[in-house]
Amino acid sequence: MPKALILIADGTEEMEFTITYDTLVRGGVSCVSAYVSAPSSDSTEQTTIYQNPPFAKGSRGINILPDTYFSPQTSTPDKYDLLVIPGGAKGAETISSSSPVQHLVREYIKEGKFVGMICAGSLAALKSGLSKQPITSHPSVKGQLEKAFAYSEDPVVVSGKLVTSRGPGTTFPFALTLVEYLCLIALRYVNLCSRQTQMY
Amino acid sequence: MPKALILIADGTEEMEFTITYDTLVRGGVSCVSAYVSAPSSDSTEQTTIYQNPPFAKGSRGINILPDTYFSPQTSTPDKYDLLVIPGGAKGAETISSSSPVQHLVREYIKEGKFVGMICAGSLAALKSGLSKQPITSHPSVKGQLEKAFAYSEDPVVVSGKLVTSRGPGTTFPFALTLVEYLCLIALRYVNLCSRQTQMY
Repeated sequence: MPKALILIADGTEEMEFTITYDTLVRGGVSCVSAYVSAPSSDSTEQTTIYQNPPFAKGSRGINILPDTYFSPQTSTPDKYDLLVIPGGAKGAETISSSSPVQHLVREYIKEGKFVGMICAGSLAALKSGLSKQPITSHPSVKGQLEKAFAYSEDPVVVSGKLVTSRGPGTTFPFALTLVEYLCLIALRYVNLCSRQTQMY
Repeated sequence: MPKALILIADGTEEMEFTITYDTLVRGGVSCVSAYVSAPSSDSTEQTTIYQNPPFAKGSRGINILPDTYFSPQTSTPDKYDLLVIPGGAKGAETISSSSPVQHLVREYIKEGKFVGMICAGSLAALKSGLSKQPITSHPSVKGQLEKAFAYSEDPVVVSGKLVTSRGPGTTFPFALTLVEYLCLIALRYVNLCSRQTQMY
């Protein structure tokens, strides 16, 4: 079963988070949501990292309880097939400014794992220093991205393992594109198991 | 500012809840989510009614913290312009089986306030004993509704003050329809204020 890690922070756009998580689960993908603390959080963060995370205050007032705290050590590309960064201006700022997240984005791409970014979440491509390639985002951050990338206004842009999208209204096609690619992984796994069964 | 009360329970479809809440907020509607306890909940419910509600376990594993417990006394149609019942089989069963919710549905319709039901949430129309009228729902509960109502397969069905819809994929048009009607309320209010300003 393919696995996805979906990041969330205070200010995450709750539709983009929820539609992606829910659609992936419906598509047979095991999902874990991980809370990324804002840099201004107090110094107790490190001591509370193994406790239950706080709820994330969504951009429009919905409070969501993440499955776990974000931990760089347990988020590596050997553990997941997909890393997702949703939008919502404040949440995307917190997530994309995190050095451990930026490192993970580069590692996922390097290891051939999928990375999904939607809305202002696409800023993580810039802050992670990904190479110039096709990308899209919420129009509000287009100005920050169009020099470093080949900017597109398509609802969903697939560039190798990087899948980007525009906002709440394009989250369904974004999530369905991710399901489609992860299903291909699952199909390959099933085929492999099937061949192994035939072999033994 | 128009006000909406959105019910939520364990098993509520989190996309239907979140897209509706978020879109209404974006449309200028003040939203309150209220947790409806399952009938099997223990007897401490009455004593904890004024404490913070527990998080609602969504149908696909997302945990959402409601704004408040559902209380029939504070949910009356003089306090809100819209009552919303989302789907998700288990959540819709809990909400639509609640006698206080059934009473409220009848009161909202009687007082000319809007009631939105989506997916299996449309069962609340049946259980509340609403009169035969056009309705839609998730296909899985069509069989329970088509004798008592004029069943339609349109994405959104408006019948007087009752607005119904089909499932996660139709939640955007459902929520936008509700925003449209509530904006008309807001416009009438603004016009009234404007006339009063001119009068004094």
